[in-house]
Amino acid sequence: MSATTRTDHALERLVFFSDAVFAIAITLLVLELKVPHLDKGSPDRAYLAELANLIPSFAGFIISFAVVGVFWMGHHRAFALAARYSNRILGWNMALLGVIAFMPFSTAFFAQNLNQHVPAIFYCATMLAAGALNMVVVRIATGPDMVDPEADPAMVRYARGRSLAVVIGAVTALVLAFFIPAYAQIGLASIGLWRRLLTSRPTQLG
Amino acid sequence: MSATTRTDHALERLVFFSDAVFAIAITLLVLELKVPHLDKGSPDRAYLAELANLIPSFAGFIISFAVVGVFWMGHHRAFALAARYSNRILGWNMALLGVIAFMPFSTAFFAQNLNQHVPAIFYCATMLAAGALNMVVVRIATGPDMVDPEADPAMVRYARGRSLAVVIGAVTALVLAFFIPAYAQIGLASIGLWRRLLTSRPTQLG
Amino acid sequence: MSATTRTDHALERLVFFSDAVFAIAITLLVLELKVPHLDKGSPDRAYLAELANLIPSFAGFIISFAVVGVFWMGHHRAFALAARYSNRILGWNMALLGVIAFMPFSTAFFAQNLNQHVPAIFYCATMLAAGALNMVVVRIATGPDMVDPEADPAMVRYARGRSLAVVIGAVTALVLAFFIPAYAQIGLASIGLWRRLLTSRPTQLG
Amino acid sequence: MSATTRTDHALERLVFFSDAVFAIAITLLVLELKVPHLDKGSPDRAYLAELANLIPSFAGFIISFAVVGVFWMGHHRAFALAARYSNRILGWNMALLGVIAFMPFSTAFFAQNLNQHVPAIFYCATMLAAGALNMVVVRIATGPDMVDPEADPAMVRYARGRSLAVVIGAVTALVLAFFIPAYAQIGLASIGLWRRLLTSRPTQLG
Repeated sequence: MSATTRTDHALERLVFFSDAVFAIAITLLVLELKVPHLDKGSPDRAYLAELANLIPSFAGFIISFAVVGVFWMGHHRAFALAARYSNRILGWNMALLGVIAFMPFSTAFFAQNLNQHVPAIFYCATMLAAGALNMVVVRIATGPDMVDPEADPAMVRYARGRSLAVVIGAVTALVLAFFIPAYAQIGLASIGLWRRLLTSRPTQLG
Repeated sequence: MSATTRTDHALERLVFFSDAVFAIAITLLVLELKVPHLDKGSPDRAYLAELANLIPSFAGFIISFAVVGVFWMGHHRAFALAARYSNRILGWNMALLGVIAFMPFSTAFFAQNLNQHVPAIFYCATMLAAGALNMVVVRIATGPDMVDPEADPAMVRYARGRSLAVVIGAVTALVLAFFIPAYAQIGLASIGLWRRLLTSRPTQLG
Repeated sequence: MSATTRTDHALERLVFFSDAVFAIAITLLVLELKVPHLDKGSPDRAYLAELANLIPSFAGFIISFAVVGVFWMGHHRAFALAARYSNRILGWNMALLGVIAFMPFSTAFFAQNLNQHVPAIFYCATMLAAGALNMVVVRIATGPDMVDPEADPAMVRYARGRSLAVVIGAVTALVLAFFIPAYAQIGLASIGLWRRLLTSRPTQLG
Repeated sequence: MSATTRTDHALERLVFFSDAVFAIAITLLVLELKVPHLDKGSPDRAYLAELANLIPSFAGFIISFAVVGVFWMGHHRAFALAARYSNRILGWNMALLGVIAFMPFSTAFFAQNLNQHVPAIFYCATMLAAGALNMVVVRIATGPDMVDPEADPAMVRYARGRSLAVVIGAVTALVLAFFIPAYAQIGLASIGLWRRLLTSRPTQLG
């Protein structure tokens, strides 16, 4: 096995491990949804009422699923541009995975205590930590140590711009959380807006 | 790394991530089975009675395991016909995975509240959402953007016919849920029937 | 992509999906271990007493971890001898994975109700179901539809002999469970004995 | 498929299975963090107080995440130096994975009963078991049965030195646990120190 093959293999195994953590964290989000238990013979509207009570939890599940999904896609996109492995990325990537693995907790805390400052701020701070670590990971993966020399520079700029948009979106959500906590997650939707301002989408995406 | 290799790699990583989410969701189904706790010295028939109480949960586990398995096999079959990656599939695939990850919740809600309209309808609606998203994903994966030019057209028709059969089976189950909720899952068994009507199985399956 | 490559890919994805389910089921076993909560200021011997109470659960965890590990290794060994994919294996493999995913439940039920007939029999019956399905899967994977034409016949005999040993060991455990339930798992240790009687270990194992 | 390809494949599948167990165990750590439930209308400081109560659990999560991460990285590094599969490693690797899968339990027991001897000693003993098994696995993977003949001897020495440093760090933590249990985890931080004493970092790391 040549040195090149071996470092490629290290990169592949890192990507695999990261994918697994993302996949597990995203699927564990559902475990925080508690199944309602009703007495036998409860009327249909009692069941509907229980489901209605769960709407904030469902919304939290959907938004966090989308958020972890966006982080995974960004990770996916950045590593597709990398061709070499560097030990520099290992610690930052582990820290990012740690925050991603922590998301089911933050999501449940927020969704079960809607319209409260502390859980909303805590949720958005988690998001900001993930966004900041993600930005570092993306920058290393698309930086001189790791980037594929043949990678399209427009794609590199796009991947980096996206990662910055996520950070600014998280800051927006964090600021909103101080004023209208129930709608803090809406701040995350601004990620799309920031991305549009910060990046010009390359025509062909890898 | 050539552009072709890179897009192939993106396809492979998408498939890997999807497989991981399917595998986790299908295995998490068991966590909703609550282990019965009995006082020491309880007679054997007390244990048997506890197991008998769990029969609906066991049935729910088995049926949902089979259902997630069928979705995974369909996903497997469709992506085996794809040769190129397209960004168009990313969002739809994530939405499909979100509904799959949600299945342990729907299953537990249904199995713990047997013979009730709301949980049965909720379960079948989840199934219909998964079926519809699955149909879109299968159509994109076997459509002009992604399909392997050498893929057998009979296999493409088969994969698409199957995905339509799942949707019609879910609709059948949903209709049943309004009338005889306890047996709504039987409607899902009609998937096999619809598949036979809609597809002719190619002799050699990939 | 040639037809050969595609069926190889289908085999690979099946193996991957199976590995993921095995890995998740084996790791979920720990979730059934409930962390003891003690009042602040409890003496050290109170903690030791709590740990002592958990010994059956720890033993259950270790034995089930070993059992799932043995099933995974057998699966691993059999599929290493296969070179072609066949649809015939799909259903049997899914059923096997379903029983494997069910193991955390059986283990917890058994370990939390030690020395009881029903949980011990239930546990051993789960094991027997897994063993029987495993034998079918191993026979198909090393049978004419799937086996690598260059595979060493001694290895094929060894893989099949092992899978039979697991079934006979599970039957032994099941019989023991009717008489001395607390020690039923010991019957599983007889797998090693049956394997020695039924197989002659090839010198080089793949 | 040649014999070489097949044994390589066995090695690859072992690595994959190990990665999956590491990834699941590290992500399950978060499930031991219990989301606080407060009455509606509780003041902000009640939420902050609940979060403050969770600080030991958060610290336990972070440290165990880092510890499992360090074990994974060591595993990663050692197997990158291996080129051949040997059955000798299978049992030791499974035992290591079993202890890794057990970590969420030890972590939660320790973090929920801070400043107590028994949980701290139990936690450090788990760590020592993982460290000792890890050392055996690293020695086999980089030993004559498995090592890549072209592997850099300096890298082999580094991987082995690291695995010894983890064991000595765990012993340090275990000794601390007998005297000042709340700070036992600090002993683990000495791993970095022992590593520096025992190894000289090769310039290029695979």
